[in-house]
Amino acid sequence: MSDATPLNLNVKALFFDVFGTLVDWRGGVAREAEALLAPLGYRLDWPAFADAWRGEYQTGMEEVRSGRIAFAKLDLIHRRNLDRILPRFGLGGAPEAALGELNLAWRRLDAWPDVAAGLGALREAFLIAPVSNGNISLLVALARRNGFPFDAILGAEIACAYKPAPEVYLSAAAALDLPPSACLMVAAHSDDLAAAAACGLRTAHIARPLEFGPGGKGERAPEIQTDFVAADISDLARRLGATE
Amino acid sequence: MSDATPLNLNVKALFFDVFGTLVDWRGGVAREAEALLAPLGYRLDWPAFADAWRGEYQTGMEEVRSGRIAFAKLDLIHRRNLDRILPRFGLGGAPEAALGELNLAWRRLDAWPDVAAGLGALREAFLIAPVSNGNISLLVALARRNGFPFDAILGAEIACAYKPAPEVYLSAAAALDLPPSACLMVAAHSDDLAAAAACGLRTAHIARPLEFGPGGKGERAPEIQTDFVAADISDLARRLGATE
Repeated sequence: MSDATPLNLNVKALFFDVFGTLVDWRGGVAREAEALLAPLGYRLDWPAFADAWRGEYQTGMEEVRSGRIAFAKLDLIHRRNLDRILPRFGLGGAPEAALGELNLAWRRLDAWPDVAAGLGALREAFLIAPVSNGNISLLVALARRNGFPFDAILGAEIACAYKPAPEVYLSAAAALDLPPSACLMVAAHSDDLAAAAACGLRTAHIARPLEFGPGGKGERAPEIQTDFVAADISDLARRLGATE
Repeated sequence: MSDATPLNLNVKALFFDVFGTLVDWRGGVAREAEALLAPLGYRLDWPAFADAWRGEYQTGMEEVRSGRIAFAKLDLIHRRNLDRILPRFGLGGAPEAALGELNLAWRRLDAWPDVAAGLGALREAFLIAPVSNGNISLLVALARRNGFPFDAILGAEIACAYKPAPEVYLSAAAALDLPPSACLMVAAHSDDLAAAAACGLRTAHIARPLEFGPGGKGERAPEIQTDFVAADISDLARRLGATE
């Protein structure tokens, strides 16, 4: 792991994973689920419910990646995943209106505390965009809620494919007329960074030890070699020479 | 032409044409062309050169719309159009490096003076995005240069089609999960607005009498019925009840 300077790397754009890297999906989904379902009389282990829903994430996207179903926005994948776990939590009889609203919980997630300031600093020196599996409308909502000053919304919906498919990373670089080597993928997940690196992008790992809750499997350090290793987004800004 | 209130219209998102409506392409292209070519000894009628280049705009895009060539970014269309007019201006021998740089003039255009403040006000009440024939990288550059606080970059490159093709307007609405009737197309060109209205979008006309220079064919008023008629973007913000 080498901390080269951004000038040496000739990086022009930073691409951000969103769920887990920029926003706390576990805390937000648990909070939104409780706010919607507790008034209806449901008593659940809310963080466990969030974990279970997120636990279906790869399965749901794999249906698209394998070609079993056509590309569909992550909102729709989230809904299919939600329906899959309802019986497990005794939610089979929950009203459709509440479930439809619950599915929008992913638009109401809060950023980790370092993110807004860190992105603001990074934007002074680089183009910044999400390269997430989230759909455009979902990411627009998260950006508005949390003050993320993105230059554009890139990622899965533009590519009609889900990470770690190469076309997601490559279409984002192409949209900005940049070679992959001028793009830096920023994520708290080593598998995302490995896929980006395989496409020729530069990589930065962000530690998110609390992504899956205290004592959970949130990555404290990368499991692969990356160009940068940062404690959080503000730390990344410092390492890239972007001052706040 | 009725000035209904935005609440009555239930408008959630505003889509903006860019060239002519938000930025002064004629003045900017003339300025950039002179800055690049005058030092090489060329003496041209710079505004006439800008007019001629823009004059090839529809021809260039029609090659895509007709299916004669595959969808290509507007940058490439601009370059084909530039090559087409070079002999007319005695530029056949201009160095390739200068022409490549000149083609980026479209990323260095200045906004009309009302735009940045108007968009800032509108963003308080609506989602805002360009729905332009410009490619993503070009629009990101214009947004950065002029401080346009767009939520996302929508338009031709997302749709892989050029306005006035219906899929450009419809794909923009779909990206935000909105019905066309919840989207308001804002443009200084009646043909753009007519195409948007045919897709079910609401429409707002912006007067840009100077788009083609003093005494030129810039539209002072819409040639079709529109939902809103505004003198500029700040005036539109006032009409929609968005305060600056």
